[in-house]
Amino acid sequence: MSLQKTDSIEGARAKFIARAGHMTPAVERLPLADALGRVLAVDVYAAEDIPSFDRSIVDGYAVRSADMAAAAQTGGFLRMTEAIAMGEAPKRALESGECAYVPTGAMLPEGADAMVMVEDTARDEAGRVTIRASAPPWATQGTLAVGAGIARAGEDMKRGGLVLSRGALLRPCDVGALAANGRMEVPVYSLFRLSVISTGDELVEPRAAPRSPPQGAEVRDVNTSALVALAAGSGYRVASSVVLRDDATAITEAVRGALGASDVVVVSGGSSMGERDLTAEVFKEITGEENIVHGIAVKPGKPTIVAFDARTQTVLMGLPGHPVSAMMTFRLMLAWFYRKLTGQREPFPIPARLCCDAPGTPGRTTLQAVALHLDGTGYKAEPVFGKSGMITTMTRADGFFVIDADALALEGTAVLVYPC
Amino acid sequence: MSLQKTDSIEGARAKFIARAGHMTPAVERLPLADALGRVLAVDVYAAEDIPSFDRSIVDGYAVRSADMAAAAQTGGFLRMTEAIAMGEAPKRALESGECAYVPTGAMLPEGADAMVMVEDTARDEAGRVTIRASAPPWATQGTLAVGAGIARAGEDMKRGGLVLSRGALLRPCDVGALAANGRMEVPVYSLFRLSVISTGDELVEPRAAPRSPPQGAEVRDVNTSALVALAAGSGYRVASSVVLRDDATAITEAVRGALGASDVVVVSGGSSMGERDLTAEVFKEITGEENIVHGIAVKPGKPTIVAFDARTQTVLMGLPGHPVSAMMTFRLMLAWFYRKLTGQREPFPIPARLCCDAPGTPGRTTLQAVALHLDGTGYKAEPVFGKSGMITTMTRADGFFVIDADALALEGTAVLVYPC
Repeated sequence: MSLQKTDSIEGARAKFIARAGHMTPAVERLPLADALGRVLAVDVYAAEDIPSFDRSIVDGYAVRSADMAAAAQTGGFLRMTEAIAMGEAPKRALESGECAYVPTGAMLPEGADAMVMVEDTARDEAGRVTIRASAPPWATQGTLAVGAGIARAGEDMKRGGLVLSRGALLRPCDVGALAANGRMEVPVYSLFRLSVISTGDELVEPRAAPRSPPQGAEVRDVNTSALVALAAGSGYRVASSVVLRDDATAITEAVRGALGASDVVVVSGGSSMGERDLTAEVFKEITGEENIVHGIAVKPGKPTIVAFDARTQTVLMGLPGHPVSAMMTFRLMLAWFYRKLTGQREPFPIPARLCCDAPGTPGRTTLQAVALHLDGTGYKAEPVFGKSGMITTMTRADGFFVIDADALALEGTAVLVYPC
Repeated sequence: MSLQKTDSIEGARAKFIARAGHMTPAVERLPLADALGRVLAVDVYAAEDIPSFDRSIVDGYAVRSADMAAAAQTGGFLRMTEAIAMGEAPKRALESGECAYVPTGAMLPEGADAMVMVEDTARDEAGRVTIRASAPPWATQGTLAVGAGIARAGEDMKRGGLVLSRGALLRPCDVGALAANGRMEVPVYSLFRLSVISTGDELVEPRAAPRSPPQGAEVRDVNTSALVALAAGSGYRVASSVVLRDDATAITEAVRGALGASDVVVVSGGSSMGERDLTAEVFKEITGEENIVHGIAVKPGKPTIVAFDARTQTVLMGLPGHPVSAMMTFRLMLAWFYRKLTGQREPFPIPARLCCDAPGTPGRTTLQAVALHLDGTGYKAEPVFGKSGMITTMTRADGFFVIDADALALEGTAVLVYPC
């Protein structure tokens, strides 16, 4: 093994996609109520016009705009024909000189082409409607535009028009748009099945402190909990998880056992060189081919391994043992992979200015954790420094930005911060 | 009723908190695996040092730094005492002139105060370790700093130190930090129980299109789906939902029926003035007191009503019937309310520059929807204009920013965009 032959992030991603980019998550039809946060698997077109009829967007009177000039000039009135109720069709069309009361959201009568807001009008007991002198110029001068106060049929969504595209990560408003279209079942991409194998001779299952703290050189397993949590928002559901000692036979067995029921098997190893070799060898033996990526020139996350098992169509990924590195690499590679395969847009990073210098790393891209501080209409990004593997460098941070290999990010530099 | 006596957003929030700010979500203990996205209800302190022992953060040799100058100057060697395994305690302390192999993450022997990376060394068959000539100056010149390559016990988290604060919205890295502390059960705030009553004579239950589209002036109910989806990420779980006609008796009965099993009851009414009056009167009759807020000077969202039932300690909220207004108001008032009560930080808005002018509204704050376009290390915000109530103004947008009443937001203005 040589960790010198590392790939750049872009290089590693390109190799990963070249070998496994044909994987496509299955499509499942979910009840709309369960589709929030899932990725739409098809383009959705409107089956009908929305609104399905010309509706008022104000409380007031439906009029024929051509009548307004005369009414305004003469101080004359419009005769009210009816008050149209929500959910009901008007009883008759408007003739010249007539108006009808229409509440917000109700249907306009035929012949009407504009709305006058109720607060700009007065109505007498005989049902005669006049424009108030205090009304705005467009009402008092009779220059009411055709279409004022109306949403036309299809003006929100046109029958046959695109409502949402494949790859949309469904937000509450998207769920609303689907409900408006009567789409109470939605085809979304299935989550990838993830198996997490956390390895290390030092690892013990986390238990309630302080009753049973780790002894001597033991360390609680953090990666299982952290990766299961990360999986949830990244397109993965955890099919299985296990903590193992650094034993080639046990790891090989566990990976083989997980192949059938997983789309991705993650082995998070200790960070020592021997253990990294072990994962790499296990993957090679199982897949019968060279690993796709062996080392990424990024800090943290260098000892990352990517392999592909052609027989079962499963991605194998070796993640660093340090929780921070494991989480960063999961984001960089696996969360990105699911977004790519499902046609999702990359999430929006937050622009910020560095409050002080942050050094990069020789030969490696640095993912530098920062805390964000809102400062007027912009952010200051304050680097959170800490030794390799410290979990608090992440819990104290709001996100991270990228420093190119060998570079120095100077105070005041504009950076893009990815939330963590 | 007078919609003229509206409150500003800040005014409405202040009144809301003054009357209902004593409500506190219950605290429940969840398994760590279920705590992601929930709000921590207590400050969490470290019960032990993490790491719990001095550990190496590189693969290499533990040394006594004082020995290094001599070894470097004389070209002499250090005698390796042992190779320390992951998870195991060293067998003996280092004496002067000795070193021990320690992989990343393993425990340092007593007496060692620094690590030399394995790639900077050479070892012969007799276990004699020398510094390579190609090693960096600090190694070859024997100026190795005390603590180099080591994470000291408690350097990540100190026993008794604050790990996470009450009000933290738990992210994957926070879950990792809790696992590292052996906190496999976490006290988090319970979700508020929300009942959604969607009212309107025009409303029909959404059904699969195009088989059963709404007839005539009927409109599919969107608010139930949209509010249930919004609830999920805002601290609420839906206890019940129902679609009703605009009938005072039916609505009163539904609200009364929901009081016992809800912390918040939402009535989303049609947007016409008559219906708004109806909700206001129903709330007054039920609570026996004046409504707290009746109208907010914001667009969209003006016809919002807030009331409080002292007997059952329940918030009653009347939301506009238009889905966009209902969702905006839910975010402005109810999502904010839960954040406030649980001590959460406000979410980070995204700074952007307006790509063109966006007019405000006379007498009202405007929540202007925008699409975001990344442009170098900043964003352009492009207003999404559309008539009141159009759902596509939200589905086409990435978020919204605030325009003060009567103001005009000019092209190039720096704005803060809240994701939607």
